[in-house]
Amino acid sequence: MGLRWAVSPTDRSVMREEFRADLAQVSRTLVMMAEAVQVAMRRATEALLKADQTEAEQVTDRDAEIDALYRIVEDKVYDVVARQAPVASDLRVVLTALHIAGDMERMGDLADHVAKSVLRRHPAPVIAPELTGVLERMGEVADLLASKIVTALNNLDAVAAAQLERDDDAMDDLHRRLLKTIMSPDWQHGVESAVDTALLGRFYERYADHAVNVGRHVVFLVTGENAA
Amino acid sequence: MGLRWAVSPTDRSVMREEFRADLAQVSRTLVMMAEAVQVAMRRATEALLKADQTEAEQVTDRDAEIDALYRIVEDKVYDVVARQAPVASDLRVVLTALHIAGDMERMGDLADHVAKSVLRRHPAPVIAPELTGVLERMGEVADLLASKIVTALNNLDAVAAAQLERDDDAMDDLHRRLLKTIMSPDWQHGVESAVDTALLGRFYERYADHAVNVGRHVVFLVTGENAA
Repeated sequence: MGLRWAVSPTDRSVMREEFRADLAQVSRTLVMMAEAVQVAMRRATEALLKADQTEAEQVTDRDAEIDALYRIVEDKVYDVVARQAPVASDLRVVLTALHIAGDMERMGDLADHVAKSVLRRHPAPVIAPELTGVLERMGEVADLLASKIVTALNNLDAVAAAQLERDDDAMDDLHRRLLKTIMSPDWQHGVESAVDTALLGRFYERYADHAVNVGRHVVFLVTGENAA
Repeated sequence: MGLRWAVSPTDRSVMREEFRADLAQVSRTLVMMAEAVQVAMRRATEALLKADQTEAEQVTDRDAEIDALYRIVEDKVYDVVARQAPVASDLRVVLTALHIAGDMERMGDLADHVAKSVLRRHPAPVIAPELTGVLERMGEVADLLASKIVTALNNLDAVAAAQLERDDDAMDDLHRRLLKTIMSPDWQHGVESAVDTALLGRFYERYADHAVNVGRHVVFLVTGENAA
């Protein structure tokens, strides 16, 4: 595999090869985590659009798995650092995996928040009919962002990672549209529904923000330099 | 100073003493950061209660300082780890400083969100008169939590740090009261105000959640063991 983290090429020893193998293992866990948070938000959105209790419960049940993956990344990173004692620049790159895992853990939490909001109102739907389209689009953008994270981590592709920023703009636009709708004088669904919807909007927006953070960290992981 | 991080007592060499001095320096920066996020939320709450634009602007202007302190902690920790190559258990304790700084950076962001909400509605107040008391209390609980973080970090006091969890319950109660008020049929202030208030409530609640996380990490820093 020609893929490389941005580790410094100072030493070609056996330890160096071990170090690379360790990093590849960390990457694989990060990919698993990215796939899990993608599935979580995809299912949460489906549960939301269909007011589907079973689907929502699956999301909340499986949030612990994402948290467990976070711990695995943390343990592996600590183990690598302790065994390999990397030089300062390598260390910084390795520890970036913790930031990535931390952001993804939050993305999992946000999918869980969406699912809990569905469960709280069930069997009533959380979202007003005129907002189904906007929420569906928000779910699609979230899914796109997560799938780009999976690709960027799988291929250690800094270019793909840097693109996440642009897709986040689409989420911001949708979020603005959502807020405009619930705050318009035509809103017919009362305060409770408006508040629930505003919070849901925030969950998707924060999910996208964390995805952008992951993108920036992946750029650093691959290039050793911060994204502009 | 008799204060100690939970570093393993295996080695009494000069390097060991350097290591302790490095950690003390990291602690000092963490204390500065805790003080900064305490002041930020205190001022944001004042700006909120008085619809005070100048105060709110001070909070948003100074958020960059908190972010800068985060970078300083990060740089110091990376430097310590790279120079001292601590053993696995020590490493885990040192890296806990990053978690603490990360949570506090988010606390600063949340104070910033409160201030921005004030600026968005200025000169109108964001909160309805009947909710002034609840928001004032939420501000007090936030302030108490932050001051306990300052004390716990200053004295590396695991007992004080563990107490944060209990104070968070008070925040949750206040948050529930706030949501109940805006969702009651008596609510007279329309959807926009309800949505703003619900988001504000969430900012204080999240601030408290991050404070509890900091408390847990401080326990680990001092004892080397996770809080129950």
